[in-house]
Amino acid sequence: MLLPGDGIGPEVIAEVKRLVDLLAPDLEIEEGLVGGASYDAHGTPLTDETLQRALASDAVLLGAVGGPKWVGTARDKRPEAGLLALRKGLDVFANLRPAFCFPALVSESSLKPEVVEGLDIMIVRELTGGVYFGTPRGIDEKGGLRRGYDTAIYTHPEIERVTRVAFEIARGRSGRVCSVEKSNVMDSGLFWRQEVTLAHAELGAGVDLSHMYADACAMELVRAPKQFDVILADNLFGDILSDEAAMLTGSIGMLPSASLGAEGTPGLYEPVHGSAPDIAGKGIANPCAAILSFEMALRWSLSRGKVADALFAAVGAALDKGARTKDLGGELSTREMTDAIIAAL
Amino acid sequence: MLLPGDGIGPEVIAEVKRLVDLLAPDLEIEEGLVGGASYDAHGTPLTDETLQRALASDAVLLGAVGGPKWVGTARDKRPEAGLLALRKGLDVFANLRPAFCFPALVSESSLKPEVVEGLDIMIVRELTGGVYFGTPRGIDEKGGLRRGYDTAIYTHPEIERVTRVAFEIARGRSGRVCSVEKSNVMDSGLFWRQEVTLAHAELGAGVDLSHMYADACAMELVRAPKQFDVILADNLFGDILSDEAAMLTGSIGMLPSASLGAEGTPGLYEPVHGSAPDIAGKGIANPCAAILSFEMALRWSLSRGKVADALFAAVGAALDKGARTKDLGGELSTREMTDAIIAAL
Ligand SMILES: CC(C)[C@H](C(=O)O)[C@@H](O)C(=O)O
Ligand SMILES: CC(C)[C@H](C(=O)O)[C@@H](O)C(=O)O
Repeated sequence: MLLPGDGIGPEVIAEVKRLVDLLAPDLEIEEGLVGGASYDAHGTPLTDETLQRALASDAVLLGAVGGPKWVGTARDKRPEAGLLALRKGLDVFANLRPAFCFPALVSESSLKPEVVEGLDIMIVRELTGGVYFGTPRGIDEKGGLRRGYDTAIYTHPEIERVTRVAFEIARGRSGRVCSVEKSNVMDSGLFWRQEVTLAHAELGAGVDLSHMYADACAMELVRAPKQFDVILADNLFGDILSDEAAMLTGSIGMLPSASLGAEGTPGLYEPVHGSAPDIAGKGIANPCAAILSFEMALRWSLSRGKVADALFAAVGAALDKGARTKDLGGELSTREMTDAIIAAL
Repeated sequence: MLLPGDGIGPEVIAEVKRLVDLLAPDLEIEEGLVGGASYDAHGTPLTDETLQRALASDAVLLGAVGGPKWVGTARDKRPEAGLLALRKGLDVFANLRPAFCFPALVSESSLKPEVVEGLDIMIVRELTGGVYFGTPRGIDEKGGLRRGYDTAIYTHPEIERVTRVAFEIARGRSGRVCSVEKSNVMDSGLFWRQEVTLAHAELGAGVDLSHMYADACAMELVRAPKQFDVILADNLFGDILSDEAAMLTGSIGMLPSASLGAEGTPGLYEPVHGSAPDIAGKGIANPCAAILSFEMALRWSLSRGKVADALFAAVGAALDKGARTKDLGGELSTREMTDAIIAAL
């Protein structure tokens, strides 16, 4: 199912459709509304009908949500709320965010080439728990004092299932997992460390597990990012650290993500970039992150690893030949960038 | 009051003492134990007697706390717990963490010179509230489910007082404050944004206030760090983002911090680096962060701005002349680095 969403979402998803026609014409495609687009049409950023259709599909590819138009909207009606409801509704608890440096784009990074060349990190972020969803939460007054509060909470099964995914992924890579928390100040962080350690004893054969505080990880990602292979983090730290890691690569308009639930349930695929309202409608957005999100869907939900390999290689080859959208210092339109990828297939 | 603490703490504080003798010989110096050193002597990482003496002093300069020796210790007895108790006991709610790039050290950064040259950010981190101290918190079992949880909470006065400090500091700089939270997913974050906005309307004359999500800030710090002047953040986001910002400068062994409470109460000054157990006792630690923390104490607690200016300039001049400890690729010992600074005074 395709959920183009808002801003540049529809533009980049349009390019994905061309690749579906070319690489997987047998796939049945349906579309739906999410975010501001859904709010405008139905008064809610995600209808139950859309969620049901998403649940019945094999994979969900989302463009982007949000924009200035909906900033004044009540928080539970905002585009972001639709995204959170979709993640929770699909129960996609493991968000995979690769941060790799395309060889052709090394010079785009703020970091020195030798620091990021060959960088290839996979962040596994817990996506349906933690402070994002914990209760009690609210803004109210107590004893004459205005206050705002949230609950950061994790249970044993929540940590175990996402840790299992991190271990599986590490086994297909260099086998190293670095689990990140603030166990020196948070009880949920100490619990996270204990549970990951237990899971490692039970399920971690062949996996080399280490632990790091979130502040140290934010530092180390700048100092020596190539030390990392798989980073396992909760919803909040995973949000911050994956954005930092993505930016290191200089390829922020390029990076995809996959959010996986239990075996046999549909995965949710999204570019890491947002809805970019400033360039929406101009036909200049970089379609690569959406195209690579489709590539991840082919791999993780649709069992078409070979096609995925070919598509990934074509994106790299197009970059090697100098194909660049505006965000990468080039001149190509959204459509022309896709043309270059298709030509490299 | 000097609290050397653990690891390299005593070594770097010893160098500060030389500078006190030279630049402020009239200061009465007393010393105390904190962290593992206090635990070993008294079974607790901060005694009430030490806290009382700290409260009665004009300024507290801490070296560092922690080390592998105390990792197995119960959490409320760990060195870090002593530090948190000291911050809370002194009620130093505003943690100032400058991240600036010494011209002579630009090449030490992982980032390209043009990205960090002239970088000068002041992070104002709330230090005595938020998820660090919120209750309820714990690790227990409910409905047969093991769980760990914390409460992220802020009240109106907590946000107002630290925002006021950020505004004051911005007025002495370029006047821009960027407040950071996750108001799109956290109620405490939405409350933070609302309260900072209110405080701005009341107290923010001459201050240009903007807001950013913490994940976006983690990205922007890598992409274009020079866009920032003052960053205002809660305890947890401030912890992560200030470490990230510190590492950008390439001067992580160089950076000081000041934690301020209400007018007339003693400030707490600490290097940003930790206790570095791997190099402790070798006499090779970089004393600059401790020396610059003393510089901040001269400025913020002891009303000796002129002496502070001279000391700051001397550190820069020593670096310009090529003085480098091992962490900066040089050969100087802790003592020799201080000699170089003294020679430049
Ligand atoms: C839009 C926002 C709610 C979301 C998050 O915080 O999860 C985004 O930052 C992300 O990482 O996908
Ligand atoms: C040691 C630890 C408790 C502390 C913190 O998280 O505040 C440290 O990271 C810091 O930033 O001073």
